[in-house]
Amino acid sequence: MEETVHLRNLHQPQPLLVVISGPSGAGKDAVVKALKQTNYSFHFVVTTTDREPRPGEVHGVDYYFVSTQEFERMIAADELLEYSTVYNQFKGIHKSQVRDALASGKDVIMRLDVQGAEKVRKMCPDAVLIFLAPESEEAWLLRLHTRNTETDEAFQVRFETAKKELEDAKKFDYVVINAHNQLDDAAQTILSIIEAEHHRTTPRRIQL
Amino acid sequence: MEETVHLRNLHQPQPLLVVISGPSGAGKDAVVKALKQTNYSFHFVVTTTDREPRPGEVHGVDYYFVSTQEFERMIAADELLEYSTVYNQFKGIHKSQVRDALASGKDVIMRLDVQGAEKVRKMCPDAVLIFLAPESEEAWLLRLHTRNTETDEAFQVRFETAKKELEDAKKFDYVVINAHNQLDDAAQTILSIIEAEHHRTTPRRIQL
Repeated sequence: MEETVHLRNLHQPQPLLVVISGPSGAGKDAVVKALKQTNYSFHFVVTTTDREPRPGEVHGVDYYFVSTQEFERMIAADELLEYSTVYNQFKGIHKSQVRDALASGKDVIMRLDVQGAEKVRKMCPDAVLIFLAPESEEAWLLRLHTRNTETDEAFQVRFETAKKELEDAKKFDYVVINAHNQLDDAAQTILSIIEAEHHRTTPRRIQL
Repeated sequence: MEETVHLRNLHQPQPLLVVISGPSGAGKDAVVKALKQTNYSFHFVVTTTDREPRPGEVHGVDYYFVSTQEFERMIAADELLEYSTVYNQFKGIHKSQVRDALASGKDVIMRLDVQGAEKVRKMCPDAVLIFLAPESEEAWLLRLHTRNTETDEAFQVRFETAKKELEDAKKFDYVVINAHNQLDDAAQTILSIIEAEHHRTTPRRIQL
């Protein structure tokens, strides 16, 4: 029946490329973890970094932790889709990661810093860019401070950069406030955004 | 603190104007009813019509039921924002309804036929237009047929018009399939769309 096919065509659940970004301390990692605990099935692109793992972080799950030497080899071999140096640490997305993700047929989620998100926007204008923002400066400072793994100077650099990055929120598609103790709300809002995006009549074209 | 104010400004929950539309028999009325039963608080704009109430329909809640004579008086007095004649029955939105709705500060939801939705789009390009579509032609025919209040001829007219209206889905922002026995899913998807829209960085400007 022709009409039946037509009706089905109205709603094509094409995979989305979703970038969860925001300044340091906004809670990107926690939100991604919360999303993984829901029954929403997606492919998570794991970032490669040369920084030291924080307590509890698992290689291959939270990040790929490599040496600075290995990261520099990847850059030289053009193996990275995008990379940046933030707070004197390398972070980047390995191309093979993205190829695997796109082949999965599921929605692809990346966690990127603000600079990385802007690079993906240029490469793929139809990516869904979500800016995760802290609720208030007080809560945000507190969250940043609980990372006792860095020096005062490193902290100051991180905080000043993060404050500047808030200005970039308007370049994103959506802003989600990650309020203190309301992590599930932020994750739920992101799921709503993804569900809504799947019902748009003008589908986003993902080409990388 | 300047930054705190700045953070709050990132997310301004401005009221939305949401139009729930779709062909006859897609389940617009049922979905609006389902939305009313959630804890989402919105202002519903009640349509004025000169058709007879169906069993269970309440004046002032489902529709304002008026005589054809009274409807024609409203047209002549320019009291209607938009109106149309569908299947030889008048349907329209009284201006005072929309004024009240916009004054409420809540999201405003209208249920409109496809022609009405297209008129609102022209008047208010930033309205959120949701096209409710039936899942399959079989289920749709069944639903249309259960309305035994009309003649065979009226039914045929309704069905042919509805089939043509499916072509217009692409002009809407979102398409939601209202599958048989999954009314709550359709309502939930609409709530997700509304939540997502509230987190857009480019807010929609509602001016009527």
